[in-house]
Amino acid sequence: MFTSRPIGFVSSPYKTTSEVPKGPGARHDADGMLRILPEFEPGLTDIEGFSHLFVLWEFHLSVDYELFASPPFDTSPHGVFATRSPRRPNPIGLTVVELRERRGNELYVHGLDMLDETPILDIKPYLSSIPVEQLRRGWLAEVEARQK
Amino acid sequence: MFTSRPIGFVSSPYKTTSEVPKGPGARHDADGMLRILPEFEPGLTDIEGFSHLFVLWEFHLSVDYELFASPPFDTSPHGVFATRSPRRPNPIGLTVVELRERRGNELYVHGLDMLDETPILDIKPYLSSIPVEQLRRGWLAEVEARQK
Repeated sequence: MFTSRPIGFVSSPYKTTSEVPKGPGARHDADGMLRILPEFEPGLTDIEGFSHLFVLWEFHLSVDYELFASPPFDTSPHGVFATRSPRRPNPIGLTVVELRERRGNELYVHGLDMLDETPILDIKPYLSSIPVEQLRRGWLAEVEARQK
Repeated sequence: MFTSRPIGFVSSPYKTTSEVPKGPGARHDADGMLRILPEFEPGLTDIEGFSHLFVLWEFHLSVDYELFASPPFDTSPHGVFATRSPRRPNPIGLTVVELRERRGNELYVHGLDMLDETPILDIKPYLSSIPVEQLRRGWLAEVEARQK
């Protein structure tokens, strides 16, 4: 197995977890920046051609994990792999962002949900989507239906 | 930072990298199974409600990384973060699969592109898609256009 290393850090308006929008209908409208370490900047070549990126990052404030997670907006716990809980066996987060502009080693993006100073592990191009009519969204859809 | 640990292993029809479909139009039609280690099985609770999952996994055969990658189906190199190359600073792969059935700690899935015995790092529910008309796909779209 491998030991993770940061390829850069997130610059985000969210300084504490309580500021990050959560739950059904939560919108991730935050603008921010992915500052890639200079040694990795050549790896960004041609990335500006992509409108959306997968960002893999580390839940750096998370210690240990729990196999059940109770989202703040639901009353019952769910298996951690059926949630976005930060307390995971491998503390890796995943966010899709829109790439607005690249300036050298800085990627200006829209749609952040990470905290400021979050270590970035990887960036990948977002290439295709599952058509929304093919998606089933389990317990989250049930919570949304109850809230209507 | 953290040291990765497997939460399970992929059971895939692909035994060598040369068997995995690659390039524009490559279809990932393979059926297979994600065998989660028994100690993590409780973390799968409620996962069967989701039609699609993100699977994070380790490029376990990859050693070291390169900042430029030359996809086999293109003539020019691109920055590693604009490609799906296995030779990445953090050797993490990402695949969206369709969940067909769960039997205990076994997830039967469609759409694999990993090798058999690949270590699984994390599973997350796939909750939303970027509308296809909003996607720009950079160099990959250019390669596809040239091939038509």
